[in-house]
This record gives sequence, structure tokens and C-alpha cells, in this order.
Amino acid sequence: MQFNSTLESIKTYEAGKPIELVVREFGIAPEAIVKLASNENPYGCSLHVSQAVEHILSKMARYPDDSMYKLKASLAKRYGVDAGKVIIGSGSDQVIEFAVHAKAGPSRPVLMSAVTFAMYEIYAKHVGAPVLRTTSRHHDLEEFYALYQAHKPSIIFICTPNNPIGDAIDAASLFTFMEKIDSDTLVIVDGAYMEYGRARDAAKALDAQSLIKHFDNVLYLGTFSKAYGLGGMRVGYGIASEPIIEALYKLRPPFNITTLSLEAATVALEDEAFIEQSVASNFSEMARYEAFAKERGLEYIESYTNFITFCFEAPMNGTKIAQTLLSKGMIVRDLASYGLNSIRVTIGTPSENDRFFELFDHLLKE
Amino acid sequence: MQFNSTLESIKTYEAGKPIELVVREFGIAPEAIVKLASNENPYGCSLHVSQAVEHILSKMARYPDDSMYKLKASLAKRYGVDAGKVIIGSGSDQVIEFAVHAKAGPSRPVLMSAVTFAMYEIYAKHVGAPVLRTTSRHHDLEEFYALYQAHKPSIIFICTPNNPIGDAIDAASLFTFMEKIDSDTLVIVDGAYMEYGRARDAAKALDAQSLIKHFDNVLYLGTFSKAYGLGGMRVGYGIASEPIIEALYKLRPPFNITTLSLEAATVALEDEAFIEQSVASNFSEMARYEAFAKERGLEYIESYTNFITFCFEAPMNGTKIAQTLLSKGMIVRDLASYGLNSIRVTIGTPSENDRFFELFDHLLKE
Repeated sequence: MQFNSTLESIKTYEAGKPIELVVREFGIAPEAIVKLASNENPYGCSLHVSQAVEHILSKMARYPDDSMYKLKASLAKRYGVDAGKVIIGSGSDQVIEFAVHAKAGPSRPVLMSAVTFAMYEIYAKHVGAPVLRTTSRHHDLEEFYALYQAHKPSIIFICTPNNPIGDAIDAASLFTFMEKIDSDTLVIVDGAYMEYGRARDAAKALDAQSLIKHFDNVLYLGTFSKAYGLGGMRVGYGIASEPIIEALYKLRPPFNITTLSLEAATVALEDEAFIEQSVASNFSEMARYEAFAKERGLEYIESYTNFITFCFEAPMNGTKIAQTLLSKGMIVRDLASYGLNSIRVTIGTPSENDRFFELFDHLLKE
Repeated sequence: MQFNSTLESIKTYEAGKPIELVVREFGIAPEAIVKLASNENPYGCSLHVSQAVEHILSKMARYPDDSMYKLKASLAKRYGVDAGKVIIGSGSDQVIEFAVHAKAGPSRPVLMSAVTFAMYEIYAKHVGAPVLRTTSRHHDLEEFYALYQAHKPSIIFICTPNNPIGDAIDAASLFTFMEKIDSDTLVIVDGAYMEYGRARDAAKALDAQSLIKHFDNVLYLGTFSKAYGLGGMRVGYGIASEPIIEALYKLRPPFNITTLSLEAATVALEDEAFIEQSVASNFSEMARYEAFAKERGLEYIESYTNFITFCFEAPMNGTKIAQTLLSKGMIVRDLASYGLNSIRVTIGTPSENDRFFELFDHLLKE
């Protein structure tokens, strides 16, 4: 059977390996496995969330409220915007998918950093849109601007803090950059790790309300998968001017969020103390990773997120290191598919991090 | 901001109104509202499912096992096929979306019945594919074949039992029809209500294993949203030959099913007794609806599902009837958007049905 030609160039996203797979492949007991591969919150989610979800288990048979009234109202209040400026996706991933389908195409390229979230390119391939990339690994807005002028992309992706390497841009530089971009180019500001970024450095804190007040062509993305500890529940969101939200809504399939996920996200938003504690623990543990790297002369990228990226030089090999750690039940992320000789390690709980240091140290001495 | 021109013709799916909305709009207490609008299982889901989900609430922070190993293995076993012939979607909706994006396009039309599931057309519009329809309200395979010969569609949609009117075709006729269709045309057999259809009439029972054994170009769809009582959890599936599954997989976003939904569906599949009881209760209550209609001389469509469609003639008006029932806290589905002067009523629990008969009777006497 013949399929549409766009399918030929689509690559599949390489996800962090789940614990279940390591159990099956290596025969390691689940409790002996540590997963530091998918930037999940190692402290789980707020207890209020588990309680609220447990309370509505009898509603699993009922389709979700497709207007998402409560969650949209909560997000609108949190960000100080109208509910009509909010769209909710199955992860912020899905909002990216809507945006790419709404705006990009074979003659409407997209622009992104040399190293950034893999789904931008994958969704661009879905619609046959050419992908332009800067040469700089970090977000270099001057290079972005030069490519913008030369190619007039339909979408510019700014991922800050940037997954998978952890860098972030100053909010002020983004505003200056935005001033120079024409109003028909959609700028997607992916703030999936913003709860971490703003805590480490206030200069990196991007305020969605202010962004969309100043610019009609920006789409800010947030997620419940990282700091909020709901990676398994698939809820993200976009905030933008009404014309953008209305266009994306046309591509939203009905019931894209489960009944339990809507409740989980709504309740998660109310427990700010949980986020503060998670973020504070993250950076106190991050300091241990940085000290570990400095003591051993390992290169790492300064991170505004809940992960840290170690960069290797031959003969050290990120893929081999990740594989060796995996065989011992420690799941980290090999970044070879991003063209990097690096591993990305999620900052875990203190004991998970102890285990990483122990195994990595052992490996470095071999 | 300009968006892709395909967006202009996209209509939004009209979902059954959720209870929360009726509470807000009519100020009726939630416990006084009966929802017979979305063909949910009125008995909820298996108790084993709620228990299993409760047991893994601590896993909400973890991304789902993206290989969906357990659920795919369970489905493969149930249908007697290899796991490589199974794909899982966020509702069978999403599998339809993958198929349309993989196969249809502006010069590759899709063919469907005059009255059938609205999402087929909506997804076709996403990719700018022309929509061909039979004139017959019920699935008329001769008419399907004539249109197939005239237009060579890329996809033929067969919804059996058919939502939103409840008719079903004989399995034998579908096999005869399939023999005449070339191998490059994808035939999607949507069996969302098959658990009900096969129970009412064995001649309507389509066996996915046998279908895909005989035909490389068929995609069978099933769902956990109806008989399995998991409408809020968003899990459906497709079964087809490997080349079709591999093509659809290219369009699957990672983590399209939540961690809790994967567990819920896997456990739901094990409790066959729950399905048998739900289906048996459904048809004993359906008999009450049929008797009710006959006593009052109301036209209805013989249904192989968990809903029944009443057809009206002027001056009776389906939209007004649905609206009047709604104002009394009874949510049913107006089929005006399908071009029908009809309402569709989900078969509820005995007491929910009592309430419907009472309100509808009152309305008929006004």
C-alpha cells in the first residue's frame, strides 16, 4: 500500500527508556532501577493531586468536559489572561503539533536552534516543512535573526530553558528580538522548564502575560509534565492572542485530555508550595552534580532546568557510558541522536543522585 | 496572522454536553442531571479497573511506557494477532487521524456513509481531502462500490455498528465487498460498538483476526470508551497488517496514552464478565425503549449499539425536544448537525431510563 510521501522523512522520537523496559531487557528488579532519563519530578506530584484523582475514579467512564472549563479558568487566573487566550494539549507537544499544522508547510519553513527539543523537527516533517537551524548549540538570537531575514520562516522556535542541554536566554533579549520580527511570523516560546529557570535566575523569567500583551504573534507553552510532576498525565498548554488560539482550536481533536488528567492539573496548579520545594531541592542537588563534575574535570553545561548535560571528548563516549549505566539499572539519556557526545541526567532525589555518583565514579575509574 | 488555508473549512466536533456544563448553564444540581448523550457505559467500568488505577496513582509523575508493551500484548492475545499488528490511540479517534494523515489528501478523497461518525469528515478536512458520501443513511455497500469505482477514494470508512444511528452490516457482506476493492485503498472498519453489535446479532459480528488475515488493506478499530466504560480515559486501537501499522506509527506522537489509561485498559480487557453484564443489561433496557416507542407510534432505528435514535416528523422537532429535555436536566443528543430531525439517546441504567420515559412522555403530551 502506498502512503503519503511526507511519511518517508519522518523520524520517530526517541523517548527515555521506561523502567518496565529495563526490567524486561536486563532482568533487573524494578526497585533496583533508577530512572534519571526523562526529566520527571523525582518527588512525584502534590499529595493533593493524588487525593483528588482518587476521589473521582468513578468518573472514568464519563467523557471529559471538553470545554475544560475549570482548568482553563485556573490557568487564565494564574497567568492573568482571559480564558480565551488559553489552549490545552496532551502535553505541550500537542500544542506544538497544532501550531505546526496551522502555520508551516512545504513552502513555509520553521527555524530552531542547532540543538533543541526533537519534536519541533518531527512535527515539521509531518507537514513537509523545511527545517532551518542555527549553527550555535545555545540559542543565539543574532543568528536566529539573520536566518529569519534570509528565509522568512513561518515559525521560530525558542526553547528557554532549552531541552536537552539546559541553557536559557534573558527575557530582555527575547523582547528585543521579538520587536524585529514581523507580525505574520509565529514565535513559539517553549517554557516547559520555566519553573526551574526563573528560580535559578530572575533574568531568565519570561512572563507569558507580558509577552502576549506586547506581541500578537507569540505562543507561550507550559507543561504539567516537569515541575508539577504529572509527566504520565499528558497535560500542557499554550497562551497566545485569540486569533492564534482560535486557529489552533480548529485542529484540536475532541477529548484530548483525560477526565483524570484535567482534575490532576487543576489541583496541581493550586499547590505552589510543592513546586517551590521541588525546585529548591532540585537546585541544591544540582550543586552536588556541579561539584562532582568540577572535582573530576568533567565538562557540563550550566543548566536552568531539572537536568544536567555532561559533554565528553573521545575516547570517552556518551553512548557507551549510557549503555554501561543502563546495564547497572541507571537510566540516563544518551544525546547521540542530537549529534552530541553527551549524556543528559535528570536531577533525582538525594539517594538517586548518590547512586548515580557511585556508578559514574566507578565507570570513570575503569 | 495568516494560517494554512485548510483551516478555513474545518468544522469543530459537537460533543455531548457534559454534566458540569448543564450545572453551570441551568443551575441544576449535578445529582439531578442524567446524561444519555455520549454513549458511555452507564454502569461505569469494572471495579478491578478502579482498584488497579488507584494502586498506581504514585506513578502519575512518570511518563507512560511508550512501547505500551502490556496493553499491546493483551490486545494481541485477545484478537489472536501479533503485537506488531496493533496500534493504540488516544481514543480510536486518534487512529483515524493517523490513517487520514497517512493516506488522504487534496487529490485523494475519502468515502463514507451519508450519516456516520463526524470525525471522519473533520480529519479529512485537516488534510484538505474531498469527502464523498453515499445518499443512503444506512450503509449501502452497493452504493459504496459504485462511488468507489467512480472516484477511487484513498480511504473507505465502514462504521459498523454505525454511530450515530445504530445500524450494522452483515459480516459476510463486508467480506464480499472487500474482495472487490483494490489493495491500495484503505478500508477502515470502525467497530467502536462491536461488543454490542455482536451480542444482538451474530451475523453482524466482525472478526478482526479473520479480516486482517484475508485483507492487507483493512484497518479494524476498537475502543475502550463504550462497553469497557473508559470514555474518560481516551484509549482506542487499530488492528491491521504490519505495513499499515508501521505507517500509522510514524504519525503517532510519543506518550499519546496516559500512564493511568494504559493500566486501566489493560485491566479492563481481563474482565469479560463485566462486558457481558453491561451488554445484557443494555439490551434488556433497549427493549423497554422499543416498547415505549411502539406504544406511542414513534419512529426509531433498530440499533445494534448502546443507544437508540428516534426520528421525528414536523411539527415535532428534534432540536426543540433535546433543548426541552436539557432544561429539565436530561442530556440527549440532537442530531440536527447530521442533517436529521432526530435525537439519539444512550441506553442508561433502569432508573435513568425511567426518568427519560417520564420526561419524554410529559413532553409528548404537551
